[in-house]
Amino acid sequence: LVSAASAADNADPLPSWNDGPTKQAVESFVQKVTDKDGPDFVPPADRIAVFDNDGTLWVEQPAYVQLIFALDRVKELAPEHPEWKEKQPFKAAIEGDMKTLAASGEKGIAELIMASHAGMTPSAFQKIVGDWLAATKDKRFQRKYTELVYQPMLELLAYLRDNGFTTYIVSGGGIEFVRNFSEPVYGIPPAQVVGSSIKTKYEVVDGEPTVMRLPEMNFVDDKTGKPIGITQHIGQRPIAAFGNSDGDFEMLEWTTAGDGARFGLIVHHTDAEREYAYDRDSHVGRLDKALDAAVENGWIVVDMKDDWKQIFPSVD
Amino acid sequence: LVSAASAADNADPLPSWNDGPTKQAVESFVQKVTDKDGPDFVPPADRIAVFDNDGTLWVEQPAYVQLIFALDRVKELAPEHPEWKEKQPFKAAIEGDMKTLAASGEKGIAELIMASHAGMTPSAFQKIVGDWLAATKDKRFQRKYTELVYQPMLELLAYLRDNGFTTYIVSGGGIEFVRNFSEPVYGIPPAQVVGSSIKTKYEVVDGEPTVMRLPEMNFVDDKTGKPIGITQHIGQRPIAAFGNSDGDFEMLEWTTAGDGARFGLIVHHTDAEREYAYDRDSHVGRLDKALDAAVENGWIVVDMKDDWKQIFPSVD
Ligand SMILES: [Ca+2]
Ligand SMILES: [Ca+2]
Repeated sequence: LVSAASAADNADPLPSWNDGPTKQAVESFVQKVTDKDGPDFVPPADRIAVFDNDGTLWVEQPAYVQLIFALDRVKELAPEHPEWKEKQPFKAAIEGDMKTLAASGEKGIAELIMASHAGMTPSAFQKIVGDWLAATKDKRFQRKYTELVYQPMLELLAYLRDNGFTTYIVSGGGIEFVRNFSEPVYGIPPAQVVGSSIKTKYEVVDGEPTVMRLPEMNFVDDKTGKPIGITQHIGQRPIAAFGNSDGDFEMLEWTTAGDGARFGLIVHHTDAEREYAYDRDSHVGRLDKALDAAVENGWIVVDMKDDWKQIFPSVD
Repeated sequence: LVSAASAADNADPLPSWNDGPTKQAVESFVQKVTDKDGPDFVPPADRIAVFDNDGTLWVEQPAYVQLIFALDRVKELAPEHPEWKEKQPFKAAIEGDMKTLAASGEKGIAELIMASHAGMTPSAFQKIVGDWLAATKDKRFQRKYTELVYQPMLELLAYLRDNGFTTYIVSGGGIEFVRNFSEPVYGIPPAQVVGSSIKTKYEVVDGEPTVMRLPEMNFVDDKTGKPIGITQHIGQRPIAAFGNSDGDFEMLEWTTAGDGARFGLIVHHTDAEREYAYDRDSHVGRLDKALDAAVENGWIVVDMKDDWKQIFPSVD
């Protein structure tokens, strides 16, 4: 019994990470903050780790999963909205005209998302998202999106939790969208998801107390919104932050500028063969300012190609 | 060892509650949802319990603790704001003119709170609140406010947690105000506090990444705001809700209208001798609509005088 337990203790908690400075940096940080007698000890209540989602925990190319979902929703809802045939960005969405869609910018995409994500309760919305995620496969990998999560990051989440950390998602994506799969896929319960949101309204509909989703932005959890969302939702400054793009810059900056041991990590997509390679010029997940800042601030940059033995979980 | 453990198991988890239908209702609900083989079993992940704070977990008479704090803050800040001497509601606050202050209504009080709670980081604010709570005593009871919490409710919080519940505060009061003492006093960590909030801004000040509190309302977590705040923050509909006033009506309504076993409870202040007696006509914590609705909806009404053996924790 003793030897089994000790074998389990000695098993590598990060088997999909290649040995090298990146893996060492992660392990050394965790050892440091959990060493009761060391100068960098952090009590478990303060071991807060925040993770971006798109491009940090799952694939975001060639387009954000939530945008692909929104486009499918718009097509499905189109018969009820004849006016969309003549109205951008809906026309482009229905026709699959990605060029016009891209030209409509963030504002156009926000319009699509709000129109296709509102008018129902959060639980009805989650059912729709869940059904879509179960039925839809990525074209290139022929896998469900929930199977296009990064195996090394799943191991990292579990490793941190095993060491007394509380793990949060802090995503620019929709909070209710991510909540749909965060628990089964990442082991992160709904209350530990911070994200962008639309407004909701409480009303009694046909005698039924109801929270209704409205087509109106409430909060954008991106860039400077990330430290604000964390403050509002978690109420504590994290000691570790994990991201992949300039949208995570402020979260990393604020997290790692705190007192005591701190950890910042950026997933750099360098593996066009097994996943994608993109950074400074990408429209999705641009990594430019934060890549330069990593050097200055001592943030660890994961070279996906070199640091990760395996990208996605094994699926039977 | 066995007999010690079993003695502990049999110890009354709610010793400050008198035996009777109220205590029985609480215990029966908890037994029901934790009975794996019963028809009302609820898995631990869904055992979400939400608690109002003012008047439900601690004293709110003769005025909300946070308002007393705000008035003290305004007096302290007055020398830096000579214009307040001629400007309501600040003039009334400085002069202790409670009548004029009351006449300024919720808007006036919100103005005082924002002026006295902004212009600093959340952690600086918490330090100010913590120092004030440590130094200030209630006039009638000659106790710190954190010692004017309800012993039966502390037992109830622990009892629910011992039975796999996650306990949240859902307060009309300021989220950062409550977060200051929720962990040491109630055993509820900062991330499990939902409350009203002012806006914050992220900026780098003198090279220091900073979240700054702004004198602008962000969210009012009261009445219909409570189900909305819960949806946003927790992302799950609770199965049990605890409140004391009409401000909790919608939270109770929404919680108890869900499928499966549900529990709603109202603390009715009926004990002028040991605490206070107030309900339908009170300006603070008015309980009118929700008291009528309790009968219709099967919410349990705690009669403080009859149901509670002890009101406040014993202090040496
Ligand atoms: Ca990202
Ligand atoms: Ca109350």
